[in-house]
Amino acid sequence: MSELRLNVVTKEWVIIAPGRATRPKDFKSRPSRPPLAAHDPDCPFCPGNEHLTTEESFRLPAALDAGWQTRVVPNRFPVLSRDQTNPAPRHDGLKHAVDGFGVHDVIIETPRHDLTTALMPPSQVEAILRTYRNRYQVCQADPRLGHILLFKNHGPAAGTSLVHPHSQVVATSVVSYQVRDRIRTLEDHQALYGHCVLCKMVDDEIAEGVRIVHLNESFVALVPYAALSSYHIWIFPRRHMGSYGEINDVEVANLAASLRAVLRKLYFGLNDPDFNYVIRSSPRTCSNGEFHWYLSIVPRLARAAGFELGSGMYVNDSYPEDSAAFLRSVQVPDG
Amino acid sequence: MSELRLNVVTKEWVIIAPGRATRPKDFKSRPSRPPLAAHDPDCPFCPGNEHLTTEESFRLPAALDAGWQTRVVPNRFPVLSRDQTNPAPRHDGLKHAVDGFGVHDVIIETPRHDLTTALMPPSQVEAILRTYRNRYQVCQADPRLGHILLFKNHGPAAGTSLVHPHSQVVATSVVSYQVRDRIRTLEDHQALYGHCVLCKMVDDEIAEGVRIVHLNESFVALVPYAALSSYHIWIFPRRHMGSYGEINDVEVANLAASLRAVLRKLYFGLNDPDFNYVIRSSPRTCSNGEFHWYLSIVPRLARAAGFELGSGMYVNDSYPEDSAAFLRSVQVPDG
Repeated sequence: MSELRLNVVTKEWVIIAPGRATRPKDFKSRPSRPPLAAHDPDCPFCPGNEHLTTEESFRLPAALDAGWQTRVVPNRFPVLSRDQTNPAPRHDGLKHAVDGFGVHDVIIETPRHDLTTALMPPSQVEAILRTYRNRYQVCQADPRLGHILLFKNHGPAAGTSLVHPHSQVVATSVVSYQVRDRIRTLEDHQALYGHCVLCKMVDDEIAEGVRIVHLNESFVALVPYAALSSYHIWIFPRRHMGSYGEINDVEVANLAASLRAVLRKLYFGLNDPDFNYVIRSSPRTCSNGEFHWYLSIVPRLARAAGFELGSGMYVNDSYPEDSAAFLRSVQVPDG
Repeated sequence: MSELRLNVVTKEWVIIAPGRATRPKDFKSRPSRPPLAAHDPDCPFCPGNEHLTTEESFRLPAALDAGWQTRVVPNRFPVLSRDQTNPAPRHDGLKHAVDGFGVHDVIIETPRHDLTTALMPPSQVEAILRTYRNRYQVCQADPRLGHILLFKNHGPAAGTSLVHPHSQVVATSVVSYQVRDRIRTLEDHQALYGHCVLCKMVDDEIAEGVRIVHLNESFVALVPYAALSSYHIWIFPRRHMGSYGEINDVEVANLAASLRAVLRKLYFGLNDPDFNYVIRSSPRTCSNGEFHWYLSIVPRLARAAGFELGSGMYVNDSYPEDSAAFLRSVQVPDG
């Protein structure tokens, strides 16, 4: 009837309960998003409105200097700031606090207001991933920053109402318990068994094949054995790399191909669902050899409620093998 | 500008960023829920439809045998089942699984279709909490169950569309990593310092006063120093108790008073927001002296997105002291 599966990286148990299946046809019957114009004169991220976003910290210029491919600007409502000058933690009994020093930037992914990642040309997805690498390396060079997170929220259920394609980078002085704990899990496995558990997982998954969604020379996209929800996807570099900052140019192009292929399968197979993706990478302070970065895509189909909050477990209403088989079967248009 | 605070129990960092404040007046202007009838002939949880929910496992009868105060029935779409007969975990390389043995019951909180906890008489809230104790103790008596979770989802943003007041109990054979980790945190503090960290937190908070929402002889309700969101509330027993199963009759009455007072402040002060609450209690297998159970209420005002998913951190847009001061100031009608 149902099965509990353990995610060996996050150490979370997931209840696979297909009785409540999230069926692909339920998505096809959802209303589509309203169509957008390629340019919105009121959008602060559209070309011509660059003055509305001051302090541009990076841009990838377009060919022949005709504008830009991507821009990086501070978030208008930053949760952290580089202007905090007191880095010292404060301790008072059980109360521990530190001023909110850090980075909170927005990556404007394209001049086009109406494109989602699945519909961009491969070169544009590559430009986004090169911009991520630049931001990752810039943050890594600041010794005050302990952890760097790159992520994208797509759609209202994923936490954004701003439609112009954008991602975010948040870098913090503290390294969260969750991040430290997952790094320690990989370190412990390495110390005990002499190999990276994620390198082994990649090898095992490619050999077994049933949870693979997309494979190329440098990357494998798969539905994890203990996926936390339907169509949850991990994209791993096949080469062992601790930090996203290490990705080379060939790998950027291959990651763009893998990410675009997967997001096109979600877009055409599940009617453009809301999703989050995050790049889980080693923070600066960790020796790179001990982690193995990956990109995690979580379509926002179900809502975490009291059970997930109280138990730290998840309920997934599809078998990961079925989610992967469905995604493999999705035919996407050429382009 | 912003401040990071550490939750010493969950070990999560929270970014307190009041620039994006969740203001009480924003809630007052939300549309109210549509009014409900006291009885809905189509509702499976309403009196007269008891035959639609087979296998009732418990009921608290009404006075003079005139019906019932609460009923417990199996969830119609259970994620776990007592009928699984193979409790042996399966291991195959990195894949670990076990059949979905466990309990997934619904607690029907009242015969009245239209009441929410905030509007129930104190005696009804007491009946619900006595029913919780019965379920907790029944699950504790089954040696195959390792963890027991009692929780309530109120409203669509909290994960339920069923309006008849109900809670759920889920008991699993496995104990999740999150639960084991939090228990270990309390055990470690006890071993190092010779006292329960939550007993100390209760004492410190009552002495400082600024985050207290409600206080009675047996319970204290407060906004945690590192609350994960605005109006996040913890209710602690002032007596050190590892397990909810240990609560005595006087304490049940006092918890009913505390929970009802807090939920009335949310209801009248924030226009009946959606919320989850969970009872975090020691699982059966843990020595009771080493944990300190509590009830956690999380109003669903903000949505976790890529940042929370990828970092294991939270962003709270109000200072906990301000949330507590607002809740203390809310005047609720008599009754």
